[in-house]
Amino acid sequence: MTYQSMSREQLCQIRSKLLEKYEEFKKDGIKLDMARGKPDKQQLDISENILSIVTENEQCITDEGIDCRNYGGLDGLPSAKRLFADVFDLDERNIILGGNSSLNMMYDTIARAFSFGFCDSERPWCKEEKIRFLCPAPGYDRHFAICSQFGIEMITVPLNSDGPDMQMVKKYAESDPCVKGIWCVPKYSNPTGITYSDEVVRAFAQLKPAAKDFRIFWDNAYAIHDFNGNKKLLNILKECEKSGMPNMPIMFASTSKITFPGSGVALMSASSENIEQIKKLLSIQTIGPDKINQLRHVAFFKNKQGMLDHMKRHAAIMKPKFDAVISAFKRELAGTGIADWTEPEGGYFISFNVLEGCASKVYELALNAGLTLTKVGDTYPYGKDPFDSNIRIAPSFPSIDQLEAAVERFIVCVKIAAVEKILTEK
Amino acid sequence: MTYQSMSREQLCQIRSKLLEKYEEFKKDGIKLDMARGKPDKQQLDISENILSIVTENEQCITDEGIDCRNYGGLDGLPSAKRLFADVFDLDERNIILGGNSSLNMMYDTIARAFSFGFCDSERPWCKEEKIRFLCPAPGYDRHFAICSQFGIEMITVPLNSDGPDMQMVKKYAESDPCVKGIWCVPKYSNPTGITYSDEVVRAFAQLKPAAKDFRIFWDNAYAIHDFNGNKKLLNILKECEKSGMPNMPIMFASTSKITFPGSGVALMSASSENIEQIKKLLSIQTIGPDKINQLRHVAFFKNKQGMLDHMKRHAAIMKPKFDAVISAFKRELAGTGIADWTEPEGGYFISFNVLEGCASKVYELALNAGLTLTKVGDTYPYGKDPFDSNIRIAPSFPSIDQLEAAVERFIVCVKIAAVEKILTEK
Repeated sequence: MTYQSMSREQLCQIRSKLLEKYEEFKKDGIKLDMARGKPDKQQLDISENILSIVTENEQCITDEGIDCRNYGGLDGLPSAKRLFADVFDLDERNIILGGNSSLNMMYDTIARAFSFGFCDSERPWCKEEKIRFLCPAPGYDRHFAICSQFGIEMITVPLNSDGPDMQMVKKYAESDPCVKGIWCVPKYSNPTGITYSDEVVRAFAQLKPAAKDFRIFWDNAYAIHDFNGNKKLLNILKECEKSGMPNMPIMFASTSKITFPGSGVALMSASSENIEQIKKLLSIQTIGPDKINQLRHVAFFKNKQGMLDHMKRHAAIMKPKFDAVISAFKRELAGTGIADWTEPEGGYFISFNVLEGCASKVYELALNAGLTLTKVGDTYPYGKDPFDSNIRIAPSFPSIDQLEAAVERFIVCVKIAAVEKILTEK
Repeated sequence: MTYQSMSREQLCQIRSKLLEKYEEFKKDGIKLDMARGKPDKQQLDISENILSIVTENEQCITDEGIDCRNYGGLDGLPSAKRLFADVFDLDERNIILGGNSSLNMMYDTIARAFSFGFCDSERPWCKEEKIRFLCPAPGYDRHFAICSQFGIEMITVPLNSDGPDMQMVKKYAESDPCVKGIWCVPKYSNPTGITYSDEVVRAFAQLKPAAKDFRIFWDNAYAIHDFNGNKKLLNILKECEKSGMPNMPIMFASTSKITFPGSGVALMSASSENIEQIKKLLSIQTIGPDKINQLRHVAFFKNKQGMLDHMKRHAAIMKPKFDAVISAFKRELAGTGIADWTEPEGGYFISFNVLEGCASKVYELALNAGLTLTKVGDTYPYGKDPFDSNIRIAPSFPSIDQLEAAVERFIVCVKIAAVEKILTEK
């Protein structure tokens, strides 16, 4: 029976029981957190051997004679590029390896566009009257934050279960030369967990943007972060090459959620023309990334299969957490008509929708009961959810026990907000 | 007896002997290189233990409870900031630790100024008609390259034995609001090896630049890279605080030439107002630097004394190389009137001046005899030495034997170029 079809009396009864429980939560002093998309300690522990895999001077000198300890190697260690080329299905010649942060590589790519433009820009973006980006939402707040910092106007595009609304993407990109890019998390999207369908990826490749230097920022953060087998995502670089738009996409990835979030290896890949221009600019910015850390990754994983096997160990920790959250949602909320949620097969997030206008209320109720959630609005451009209904659930960091306690609390808050809304409207 | 005072006959005799030797060099097929300011293998080897100092999960969790493996810590690990604060005489609250490259931090500081301005800028530098930088020369080519990339006009300022010509610095900085900064390598300057005197540092602090957002880029790359004891350099941050200009200087340093050039830790320090603004912008660019590598540095050095002791081991390798080069110069060139050179007590370079108009000739002669030198002009803005006389000698990378062979070859080339010039003019 949905809440909406209940009588005032029924709803008031439910409310008083909920408030009783809520008061208990407020009193118990327990602090819980489902806000942060961080791997937990157990996940970090499984990469322990990477710390001791390169311990001697002689190990630092590669077969090609590269001394990883010394200067040099602007675009990274060749053996690491080969490993990542294999894992992410890339041309090793078109890879740049960075430091520990793919976010930093994305930011720098935008920063370079502002100061110098891309290889096919008419002028640096800072000389343009206006720059607009398409932002599929709910999306990743840090992408939107980069736009805010550079004064890029954000246009919200609905994110469906198979990817962004491509009709809207096409309309904006092909009609407005100020629209210079789009942010995508194409696999296990942050926060909805959906993966772009082949049709959507092909529709991206078929775009004929009004801006010659339109770029698809393809943040493939969860490329191999599957819970069950490997969900296929079409290769945007190859699709755009086929469609005659090789310079349009730039792919980013990292091992932040494979080895250590603070000490992983980030990478980007794009057309040879893009990579050539970026390397030329990059050669003034740095002498090169930390090659010893790249060497550690190569020695630790050995090859693609090594990395995929390692991801199974992550899945074995993550999947039970997602299952715990989702089964509680099903048990407590299925058929109530007051919430829906995604059931991702990988990645780090579950996207949860409450009744319109209730998300901020749920956030506050939770906070007052000791439960920290991702800030409402963070998943939308300008920090504003137009429906005030989306909440990002991050199940990775708490233990299963903490998670179950957190979800119990969360569900009570969701129900209270819903009951009150429905009562007001009755 | 100087070459200039010799007769044509004497010079011709010398020349034919030199050319005989030169032909031998050309034939022997030996390849030598004095171009690169890279530590040699021996120097890298002394830091081997840093590779094996953090090998277990539990070591990665600090006393404060920071898990160095995970996300977080925008400005770096507190214990590493404390260590560097002690070594470089800084306020630990005003330090930002970065990745492996201080060059990257300098570049990003300029890039941020272009896109957003400094805390006291009227507008982003990209919105200014013209940006000029003062460039003490001979100087570091990578500083000049950053200016070139951003279209910053470079004004050459002579670098004297006690620092830049401060009268000229004052004149330009105080009269021209387009002059927004100056590049300094204040200790064991690249390439002349000189250290700024107390008077020069104080003169910097006393500047009243026309541009409110004028910045001194204080690249303290060789702060503790002494061969004999510790040469004192006044602390520019403290001097500028005293003079009421706290926001003017930004200091950069790294462990690139302390541990590993490719895997060191870079840092910057400045006034709290500068640091606050930079951290705010930085928080969008990255989640934080590689804390495990910072932890390795703390565990390896333990404290300031540990780092200074380590530098003595570098000095024991470097000093004999500098001695070999300088004693050969003295033996072969003293009193000839055709060359002068610096005798640094630390750092990585010796600056060598040949007769005006001869440096390119020497470079080419050397190249054809198998000896690679730093490209002539690299030590000046726009890659142009106005006197065509400065050559940067980098003694660190070759072994002593290679170095002696290289210097022998170099001296023959210097003499040939000088004799030919003098003969032409006689």
